Amino acid sequence: MAEINKNEVDIVIGAVNADLTQFLSSWRPFFSGFHLIVVKDPELKDELNIPDGFDVDVYSKTDMEKVVGASNSSMFSGYSCRYFGYLISKKKYIVSIDDDCVPAKDPKGFLVDAVSQHVNNLEKPATPLFFNTLYDPYTEGADFVRGYPFSLREGVPCAASCGLWLNLADLDAPTQALKTEQRNTTYVDAVLTVPLKAMLPISGINIAFNRELVGPALVPALRLAGEGKVRWETLEDVWCGMCLKHISDHLGYGVKTGLPYVWRNERGDAVESLRKKWEGMKLMEKSVPFFESLKLPETALKVEDCVIELAKAVKEQLGSEDAAFTQAADAMVKWVQLWNSVNSSE
Amino acid sequence: MAEINKNEVDIVIGAVNADLTQFLSSWRPFFSGFHLIVVKDPELKDELNIPDGFDVDVYSKTDMEKVVGASNSSMFSGYSCRYFGYLISKKKYIVSIDDDCVPAKDPKGFLVDAVSQHVNNLEKPATPLFFNTLYDPYTEGADFVRGYPFSLREGVPCAASCGLWLNLADLDAPTQALKTEQRNTTYVDAVLTVPLKAMLPISGINIAFNRELVGPALVPALRLAGEGKVRWETLEDVWCGMCLKHISDHLGYGVKTGLPYVWRNERGDAVESLRKKWEGMKLMEKSVPFFESLKLPETALKVEDCVIELAKAVKEQLGSEDAAFTQAADAMVKWVQLWNSVNSSE
Repeated sequence: MAEINKNEVDIVIGAVNADLTQFLSSWRPFFSGFHLIVVKDPELKDELNIPDGFDVDVYSKTDMEKVVGASNSSMFSGYSCRYFGYLISKKKYIVSIDDDCVPAKDPKGFLVDAVSQHVNNLEKPATPLFFNTLYDPYTEGADFVRGYPFSLREGVPCAASCGLWLNLADLDAPTQALKTEQRNTTYVDAVLTVPLKAMLPISGINIAFNRELVGPALVPALRLAGEGKVRWETLEDVWCGMCLKHISDHLGYGVKTGLPYVWRNERGDAVESLRKKWEGMKLMEKSVPFFESLKLPETALKVEDCVIELAKAVKEQLGSEDAAFTQAADAMVKWVQLWNSVNSSE
Repeated sequence: MAEINKNEVDIVIGAVNADLTQFLSSWRPFFSGFHLIVVKDPELKDELNIPDGFDVDVYSKTDMEKVVGASNSSMFSGYSCRYFGYLISKKKYIVSIDDDCVPAKDPKGFLVDAVSQHVNNLEKPATPLFFNTLYDPYTEGADFVRGYPFSLREGVPCAASCGLWLNLADLDAPTQALKTEQRNTTYVDAVLTVPLKAMLPISGINIAFNRELVGPALVPALRLAGEGKVRWETLEDVWCGMCLKHISDHLGYGVKTGLPYVWRNERGDAVESLRKKWEGMKLMEKSVPFFESLKLPETALKVEDCVIELAKAVKEQLGSEDAAFTQAADAMVKWVQLWNSVNSSE
C-alpha cells in the first residue's frame, strides 16, 4: 500500500466506556503517529483512562456546550459523541472505530492495519458506475475485467470506506438476540465499490471518510427512543449512511465496502435488547421507499445544500409517519448550521 | 451446502479444442453423475477425445444443421457453440465452464466443487434490491446486517451465478497483452448479488443460470469481426451478459457473482491479439449509455418478449453506430424464434 501522510488523518474515537486502556493499547502499532480525537460520551460520568504515548485531544461535555450551547450537548450522547469529533476536525480524512473493537488478524495471522487500509481505500478512485467482478481494480495484482468500459476506468473520488467485522458481526437487536452463538469467521479479502443507486446500511463501527468531500453529510440525526449503549439498538449510523450514500451518488462520488476488518468483542446482553421493541425495523421500512424515490435537485451542488434538501424531503414525506423523522430533519438542518459556523470561523 | 438433484442440471461444455481428456479428467470428481452436453465447435475438424465414464451427449455441426438449417451453423462457431447446448437442454439449471479451466483450490487446499456451488447460488434467493455488506446472507454463518430492511430479506429468485478465475483472470486483449505476467492469486471467499440496475460484464468462462427462468436471454448475438479462438478477443458473452442482467432486473430476478472459482490455464498468445484492434472496446462504449437508458416496456412479461423488445431497441438506437449491432439485433430475434420452435416441439 502507498505511504500515508499522517497529517491528513484524524482518528476519531467515541468513548462510551471510560477505560480505553485495552482498546488503545491494542491499536498502538497502527494509531501511533496519528492525531487522535477522543470524544467522551456526555452521559459518561467516570474519568477517561487513556494510556500514555498517543497524540490525543480529549473532548468532553464542557467542550460540546461551548460549541452547541448548554442545552444541546445531548445531540452527542451515546455513540453520537463521535460526530463532535467529525465537526471539529480540520483534517482531510477521518477514521473512526468503536471502542469495543481490536485489530483483526488476516488469514495469514498478521494483524490488520485498519487505518492504512481505510486511507488507501479513500485515496484510490471508486467505480460506482459499472460493476467490476474482479472487485477493486486498483488493488495490486487486480485489474478491470474484460468488457469493463475504458471510459469508466478512471473512476470517481471515493467519499467513504466501510470496514467489516470479525467475531461479532454488526447485526440488529432481534438477529443478535436470536443467534447469540453466531460469530462471523469468514475473512473476505476484497474491497468493492457499492454501485450507483444501490442502497446499503452503512455501519459506524469501523468507517472512514473524506471529510473535505462529504464531511457535513455525516450527520447525527435519527435517534431511536429506546436506544441504549449497544450498537444493535442504534439506527443513528445506518440512517446517516443512507444519507451519505445518496448524497455521494448525487455528487458523483463512490462508497466502498469490504476491507479492513476489525475484531469486535461482545458488549451488552442481546437477550435484554430483545425485550425492547427494536423501533429501527419500522423506521427502515419507511426509509427504503423514501430513499428509493428521492431525487435531490440538480441545483444542490454542495454537500451542505444536499443535506438541507434531504432534510426538507424527509420532513415533507416522512414527517407524518413518525416523530423521529421530523426530529431527524430538524437535526440535519441544525447540523449544517453548526458545520458552517465551526468550519468557517477559522 | 444442500443436496443437489443431479437430474435438474445439464453441464454444457463448448469444445473449441478436440482433446477433452485432461479437462474432463480434472473435473471427474465434480461432473460425475451429472448429464453432460458437449457441443463441438462447427469449425473444429478433428475428432473429439472424450474419456470414458461420463454421462455425455455430443453434438456436432450435423446436429446444428438439423435444427437451424445448413447455412446457419456458423452462429454457433467458436465459443458460441455452447449456446446450442443451452438451446437443446431440457433441464432447469445449466452450468457451463470453458475447456481451458480446471478445478481451483480454496485457501485450505481443497478442490472447489464449482458445480455444487453454482447450483447452490441458483437455488438460494438473490438480494438485488438492497446491498448487504455481509455478502450473501444465505451462506451458512452469515446473515443480514443491521439496518437491512426486513421486508426485503426474502429476496428474489436467482437467475444466474457468475463464477470467477484464479491464475489467468478474464481480461481483455489489450490488458492481457500488456500484463502478460499478471496472475490472479486472490481468493475472495464471497458470493454477492449485483444490485438492481448495476451493469456488469458477465463472463461466459464459468457461469450457471436457471434455464427455466431466463433461458432465452442467453443469446449468441454480438460477434466481433476479428474474433479469434481466445476469450480475450470475444465480446459475445459480455454482451449476452448485459442483456441477461437487464432482463433479470426487469423481471425481478437477481444475478450473483463471486464463488465458485476455477483455475484458468493459458491459451493463445496475448501479444498476437494486441496486433488486432480490439473492436470490443469501441462497442462497449456505445453499449453502456444504451443499457443505462434502456427501459423495457411493462408489457414485456416473458423473457422472450424482453429479448424481442431489447432487439428492437438495439436496432433503433445502435443500428446506425455499427453494423455489428444490427446483426446482433437480428440474431436476437432469430434466437427467440429458434428457442420457441425447439422448446415447444416437445
